[in-house]
Amino acid sequence: MPRSFEEKLALYAKLAVRLGVNVQPGQELIISADINDAPFARLATAEAYKVGAKNVTVFYSDEVNILTRYREGSREAIEYTAGWFIDGMARAMEENACRLVVHGGNPALLKQVDPELVRIASKAQAIATQKLAAFIGNFTINWNIVASVSPEWARMVFPGESDEVAMAKLWDAIFQCSHVDTEDPLKSWQDHCDELAKRKDWLNNLNFYSLHFKGPGTDLEIGLAENNRFIGGWGQARNGVRCAPNIPTEEVFGMPHRLRVNGVVSSTKPLSLRGQIVDKIQVEFKDGVAVKAKAEQGESTLIGLLDTDESARRLGEVALVPNSAAVSRTGLLFFNTLYDENAACHIAFGRCIGENMTGYENLSPEQRLAAGANESAVHVDWMIGSGEIDIDGVHKDGSRVPLMRSGEWASA
Amino acid sequence: MPRSFEEKLALYAKLAVRLGVNVQPGQELIISADINDAPFARLATAEAYKVGAKNVTVFYSDEVNILTRYREGSREAIEYTAGWFIDGMARAMEENACRLVVHGGNPALLKQVDPELVRIASKAQAIATQKLAAFIGNFTINWNIVASVSPEWARMVFPGESDEVAMAKLWDAIFQCSHVDTEDPLKSWQDHCDELAKRKDWLNNLNFYSLHFKGPGTDLEIGLAENNRFIGGWGQARNGVRCAPNIPTEEVFGMPHRLRVNGVVSSTKPLSLRGQIVDKIQVEFKDGVAVKAKAEQGESTLIGLLDTDESARRLGEVALVPNSAAVSRTGLLFFNTLYDENAACHIAFGRCIGENMTGYENLSPEQRLAAGANESAVHVDWMIGSGEIDIDGVHKDGSRVPLMRSGEWASA
Repeated sequence: MPRSFEEKLALYAKLAVRLGVNVQPGQELIISADINDAPFARLATAEAYKVGAKNVTVFYSDEVNILTRYREGSREAIEYTAGWFIDGMARAMEENACRLVVHGGNPALLKQVDPELVRIASKAQAIATQKLAAFIGNFTINWNIVASVSPEWARMVFPGESDEVAMAKLWDAIFQCSHVDTEDPLKSWQDHCDELAKRKDWLNNLNFYSLHFKGPGTDLEIGLAENNRFIGGWGQARNGVRCAPNIPTEEVFGMPHRLRVNGVVSSTKPLSLRGQIVDKIQVEFKDGVAVKAKAEQGESTLIGLLDTDESARRLGEVALVPNSAAVSRTGLLFFNTLYDENAACHIAFGRCIGENMTGYENLSPEQRLAAGANESAVHVDWMIGSGEIDIDGVHKDGSRVPLMRSGEWASA
Repeated sequence: MPRSFEEKLALYAKLAVRLGVNVQPGQELIISADINDAPFARLATAEAYKVGAKNVTVFYSDEVNILTRYREGSREAIEYTAGWFIDGMARAMEENACRLVVHGGNPALLKQVDPELVRIASKAQAIATQKLAAFIGNFTINWNIVASVSPEWARMVFPGESDEVAMAKLWDAIFQCSHVDTEDPLKSWQDHCDELAKRKDWLNNLNFYSLHFKGPGTDLEIGLAENNRFIGGWGQARNGVRCAPNIPTEEVFGMPHRLRVNGVVSSTKPLSLRGQIVDKIQVEFKDGVAVKAKAEQGESTLIGLLDTDESARRLGEVALVPNSAAVSRTGLLFFNTLYDENAACHIAFGRCIGENMTGYENLSPEQRLAAGANESAVHVDWMIGSGEIDIDGVHKDGSRVPLMRSGEWASA
């Protein structure tokens, strides 16, 4: 008998809590969700208590209030960040609280807001919350990010449909990409992550010096950081817990060298960034820095991002995703990075993910920089893969191994 | 033209933010509200930003998750309190954040939960959050508590009505008691608080040693603490901001002496306590301590409260409310302390309100105790007034002044 929506949502919450975050008995969980995502947040809360969580705190955000701040707030309010809250969250994670972030809402929420205000607020927020981002990026604790459907988001993915139909279709796509529509979703997800782990082992054994992307509007050489370690599927947190940080996930990702990125690259999907849609991005890199950057839509938002700090123009992640992966097979454009990044190879401006460098945790900030790790207040993925992209792995001696051809793995 | 519901709700939010909390330009505001109260919380957020608040944080609680914790949580979870969150809130108020608490929800939420679990959780929470309560009780910062209607609450007040009708009727009662139905609600509220302030000045000038309550099932002498100061209408916060801490408010309240309460007293209205209804309470006091306490309904919840700590059986507040005040005139039983306490004289078990003692802030903990101030993790008001209560003010020499007769002020 086919499962009801409620049954699927409960399985999805179970997957996120048990395999995604992998909440441990006696561990504290902090969930971030929009108030419209309460049905999912409630199921996840129940699941975490069933697992034996000692506490579940749900911080419900409210998009109406986010907009209100931009519309009614003083300049002081736009720039303000609540240190008492950020420090409280940091302390919770120092005390081993794990995190579940529910990602949904309106991808174009801030479309009508003055982009300059958004730039100021986003920059202040990114800088103030940098230490919170490090708990995630360095896998200090186990975490997971998962999506929940809002009417605004569903309407963007399925324009012309009624809210009800659009939301049902988007949920179906989410359940499909998350293996919730399989007979045993947890088993299926586990197998899927194991497959990605094999792929990253294969890549790590090849020990490349750089990756070379070639396709329409793209001819980009991305040097890899010293002691680069590809990650895929599972994430091994420093607190000893293995989590599956993204649901869905189709990527195997590594750390670019902050000084060794050269060439030109074009985006292949629009990017939902700071409540705006940024589309048709073209960037030229020289010695790691995006020296030229433009976009046909949302260019000022993109430039605002790049001007956050001096490392926002360098790369913190390079990810390989075959064009035939589940998210891509839906044929949908999601306007949501969690989905679109898992439908295409992508790179990220800004902060590296510490776990991508063996021994990162034992290096001083200076040693990390020297090894090629990029540190920044931002980390923003954008999609550069498609069925027309070829990728070579390049060894230090210049010898090459075909990694992808026409967007697919060149070898099993 | 009569105002729409939306117009009234907006005026109510304006009243709460501008006269209730009295949010100052550049001040931070923290709102606590249930997710069902989002319409009000959003209006209050907008109003605070219009006033010039530098930040508004809304912490949305979710009654479903509160119940889930009791149903699925381990014993560890039931007893746990999040120190990182409590300390974060304390720091915000140290940094002068003001507070707006939206009080509503289901008065009998925890009716089906094991009362022993509720007792354990409530005690742990009360003790852990004592320092947060002190910011409020001592008026360190400006604050306000205001109500918002939930369907469960409306059904209790108007049983037999449809949710829609019950909610509309309860909102009407709230708007009436809050002066939102007057031509100029802010002016009317200001006048009302000024009236209460005159009454407390009159009482303070009389400088009583104790108050004597007499009525059916009640013969209680409540000694007043040294340097007792009656408060009414406005609250003068230590950060220099004058707020109206309760909407509605009809009370003038003072500080009982922790050692000088003697006699018997009976409740006159049910009390919503820890998600349960406690009704027909009878208490005998000896030298300040409730030596006997019983209730026809919810007795174990009451006893659980009194056993929180050694001072929970002593009094922290005595409040005078005429039986003809606006809340009482509605003729409704609200099952909500914010309302029912403003329809009847009441007393509170537990913690005193520091502002009720002149010079309290300059006294050591020992000096406060010696002056009669009661300190406890709890502060729970319960109603002992009615149209059948007489109250005398008693001077140290035994001379008496009639304060109330049959529940009404004996003099203007």
